[in-house]
Amino acid sequence: MARRSMRTEIIEAGLEQFHSLGFNAAGVKGITDAAGVPKGSFYNHFDSKEALAVVALQEYGAGRRLAELRDPAVDPLTRLRAHFEFLRDETIGYGITRGCMIGNFGAEIADHNDTIRTAVREALADWADAIEATLADAQRSGEVRADLNPATTARFLLSAWEGTLIEARTDRSTEAFDVFFAMTFDTLLR
Amino acid sequence: MARRSMRTEIIEAGLEQFHSLGFNAAGVKGITDAAGVPKGSFYNHFDSKEALAVVALQEYGAGRRLAELRDPAVDPLTRLRAHFEFLRDETIGYGITRGCMIGNFGAEIADHNDTIRTAVREALADWADAIEATLADAQRSGEVRADLNPATTARFLLSAWEGTLIEARTDRSTEAFDVFFAMTFDTLLR
Repeated sequence: MARRSMRTEIIEAGLEQFHSLGFNAAGVKGITDAAGVPKGSFYNHFDSKEALAVVALQEYGAGRRLAELRDPAVDPLTRLRAHFEFLRDETIGYGITRGCMIGNFGAEIADHNDTIRTAVREALADWADAIEATLADAQRSGEVRADLNPATTARFLLSAWEGTLIEARTDRSTEAFDVFFAMTFDTLLR
Repeated sequence: MARRSMRTEIIEAGLEQFHSLGFNAAGVKGITDAAGVPKGSFYNHFDSKEALAVVALQEYGAGRRLAELRDPAVDPLTRLRAHFEFLRDETIGYGITRGCMIGNFGAEIADHNDTIRTAVREALADWADAIEATLADAQRSGEVRADLNPATTARFLLSAWEGTLIEARTDRSTEAFDVFFAMTFDTLLR
């Protein structure tokens, strides 16, 4: 097996540290230690912790399975539900911690860093676009009520999801997930 | 005018620093500087930054105007809308930054600190109780659709609100607030 590049190791360790600890609590030393590379090598690949955070956020966004959301072989509402179930199960797999790195960066650091704020905004916009397209498909197939604006509804679902993750982590229980699915799929979208 | 106690000065400076910077980025030195008290005096009043954070969070919760939510002199749906408008306008007053300290602590620190996690959970529970009672009143007066469970709906509104603040701060625009009001008051609750 080919050894991964040092840059890849740093990105993956950064994603892990930023996701589990947050931006401020994650440090370059902790990231290079976790990556198993010398601290000095960090700056051969990234200008700053902020620069790594932007790349790690893109990597995290690429793991959100947005392509599956657009898969025409699956019923639109089924793939929308599967999407949020995947995200839910990921958080459950971490013992109902971590939540969404996009939302976490938005809450913790967007006020203070325009570069990261822009990266968060772009990640949310890509995500909302994919959900909007799925909702529009679901309206065409009659699975979602026709009077909802898909763009507005997609934005709202994402906001509700980000807040749901905060509630679930705070309770360290899956109850907030049940509330989310009941209030969206069984109520709002019908 | 009576001079406020040193403890009160520290709590108010702590609230300001935690709300604007987050838990990790706020330091005891910055808080005592902002309070205009010697750093050493901090530990006469609080055992730790964490202990101050819990008191500051309670103070923040007390400023959420939950009593107004329960005011029987105002129509239930009117006071529920006024509640979220008050919260929206507070964030707009800070240039669409800061958001909700309860949600921020939930996103940033609840995974790592059980004392703060418990304080966040209690703040959310008090808030949800007040919204639940208002929703039940609004159902009795026929302003909110009767088939919604008020407890579940209250939890969902809070989650949606917390995520809305993240989106609004990330966009630094009021659009996410418009989405929240349209999707809840004009759609979900009707």
